[in-house]
Amino acid sequence: MEVRQVLHMNNGEGETSYAKNSNIQRKIISMTNSRLKKAILNIMCNNNNNKNVPESIGVMDLDIIDETSRKSGISFPELRISLNDLPGNDFNDIFRSLPSIFHKVEEEKGAENCYVVGVPGSFYGRLFPQKSMHFVHSSSSLHWLSQVPLGLGTNNVMSSLNKGKLYISHTSPSDVINAYVSQFQNDFSTFLRSRSPEIVPGGRMLLSLMGRSSIDPTIEDGCYYQWELLANALSNLVSKDQVEEEKIDSFNAPYYAACPEEVKIAVENEGSFMIDRIETFEIEWDASISSNSSDEKILLSTGQQVAKTIRAVVESMVENHFGNEIMDDLFSVYGDLVDDYIYKKRAVYVNLVVSLKRKEY
Amino acid sequence: MEVRQVLHMNNGEGETSYAKNSNIQRKIISMTNSRLKKAILNIMCNNNNNKNVPESIGVMDLDIIDETSRKSGISFPELRISLNDLPGNDFNDIFRSLPSIFHKVEEEKGAENCYVVGVPGSFYGRLFPQKSMHFVHSSSSLHWLSQVPLGLGTNNVMSSLNKGKLYISHTSPSDVINAYVSQFQNDFSTFLRSRSPEIVPGGRMLLSLMGRSSIDPTIEDGCYYQWELLANALSNLVSKDQVEEEKIDSFNAPYYAACPEEVKIAVENEGSFMIDRIETFEIEWDASISSNSSDEKILLSTGQQVAKTIRAVVESMVENHFGNEIMDDLFSVYGDLVDDYIYKKRAVYVNLVVSLKRKEY
Repeated sequence: MEVRQVLHMNNGEGETSYAKNSNIQRKIISMTNSRLKKAILNIMCNNNNNKNVPESIGVMDLDIIDETSRKSGISFPELRISLNDLPGNDFNDIFRSLPSIFHKVEEEKGAENCYVVGVPGSFYGRLFPQKSMHFVHSSSSLHWLSQVPLGLGTNNVMSSLNKGKLYISHTSPSDVINAYVSQFQNDFSTFLRSRSPEIVPGGRMLLSLMGRSSIDPTIEDGCYYQWELLANALSNLVSKDQVEEEKIDSFNAPYYAACPEEVKIAVENEGSFMIDRIETFEIEWDASISSNSSDEKILLSTGQQVAKTIRAVVESMVENHFGNEIMDDLFSVYGDLVDDYIYKKRAVYVNLVVSLKRKEY
Repeated sequence: MEVRQVLHMNNGEGETSYAKNSNIQRKIISMTNSRLKKAILNIMCNNNNNKNVPESIGVMDLDIIDETSRKSGISFPELRISLNDLPGNDFNDIFRSLPSIFHKVEEEKGAENCYVVGVPGSFYGRLFPQKSMHFVHSSSSLHWLSQVPLGLGTNNVMSSLNKGKLYISHTSPSDVINAYVSQFQNDFSTFLRSRSPEIVPGGRMLLSLMGRSSIDPTIEDGCYYQWELLANALSNLVSKDQVEEEKIDSFNAPYYAACPEEVKIAVENEGSFMIDRIETFEIEWDASISSNSSDEKILLSTGQQVAKTIRAVVESMVENHFGNEIMDDLFSVYGDLVDDYIYKKRAVYVNLVVSLKRKEY
């Protein structure tokens, strides 16, 4: 599986689309808002005489820039906003919504000098010209690896080592765990190395990604359990002859939920960035359903609703391996398993928020 | 009709798509190739000591940069390529084709520092940050006006002045002609004024657009006749009760085929650019069909094939006004009329190629 070509959030605006099933990701963004503000404040006011205030900066959050400009008497800078995603994702949909967003921002803020571009490509590689970015924000993305961990791909010797599982589990042999751990270290370093020449000295990055609290990757928590339950749902379909057992053995998700220590090691090894802080926070699995329409709440169980949010994200990949025809059944069984699970345990995702500063060159 | 929202080339890769029916536009690009090379050569070698060679430039043609770099011993600069189109056009399709193009360029040229972004928005307005562009290339676009000429829109007093026609014709009253002429002057000036702060001093623009050779806009030539025949095709459908006559009267194309003198006036009035040269060249209507597959040539007449190239471009607009259900019939009748016309006359489009240089600030 070529992750760059296969991985994309579900397109469009239909029932299983990412657009309609991304409340968790929205919630994560709103929870990191205070960090976002702080990072931008740091870029805009990093000295007293305002001499280093850039005329043109790349950022995400308009409100805070507007507020800071007003308070400190700095004129509103030119904003260059670059929206990055893999080439297979739906840029058209975003682009079509821009004119009305611009119109609203112009009316409310009078901000006219705002330039938005789409940048198709993998963030595990160069995306932007040198020293062109003042602020980089990545949310709910860096837990996706650039590839299935080296050695665990479908054509490799170790491909079937992780029997019955899709991700690290308590039954996974150490070879599987090590493959995941080093793939994350490689990928996260590649990400930092790629951003390093692109960000101006003193520029900031705010990265939020799914992670875990404990150092041991086999400790059960929310990010771990989302794959564990999906493996169980697939096993259930094996018993109904809808899926071949070998298919499960040979699938390993290109995903890793890192702990803060692992992020710290990668940042220190790469060397271009200073760590401002690394925080973890928890989000209930069912946080994703709080703002769904009430009609739907009546029709679907909590588990079924949680299953929809997972489906919107992982379907492209799971479908590529297991085939389209089982998708509805798979996520229906998955929803039931989620219901069982959250009845017994408090189910939370762990999210890491990493604030970094680009060192001087 | 809101041109920004309605106008787009036919999407996808189907029978009536722009992708499959844009040989004329491709031919125009290949015909302006020598001008393109010259403009880039000027940017890269505008002094002898190479001090002004930019480290990072925005351009279109890789080959010539590669060639110039080798010859003059300048290192290959960082290339920032911005692809602009209206938000309604299909960026996804272009973005998905980028990885394989990049791969090819990297293998052939070893050029790795190339950054491509998509910029959704109207070029009749600001698109890029200040002084960010070294070279702007627009091909087969600037003949599209920002709106139906002021006063000729469907809800206006003058909307039905241009009876039975879709564009300036020999029967058009002077009010109609004047409305077109001043809309072009306004729009072309707006285009120049928008690019003016975006282009570095000494930066270049190469604009190629449909136009005409003679000063009189009612003189019949190819660009004129493409609308004249479309009006005739619609009249034909009126006689079959498929179209209401008033519908034709109230449609005026947001299009203008300018002559070199009109372009010159707009450039001089706006004042930021110097004219290097303005050239006109002719393209046979049937130039568009030369590289079509031979299967199709057997099945379709020349006129029908020409009709397909026009359909790929104007359908979104015509459909918006006349309704989707008549499109197949309309372009079939249109194809027959094209066959009649090219049997009697040598049918050519006139294309203007305008080379401009940004004055010092």
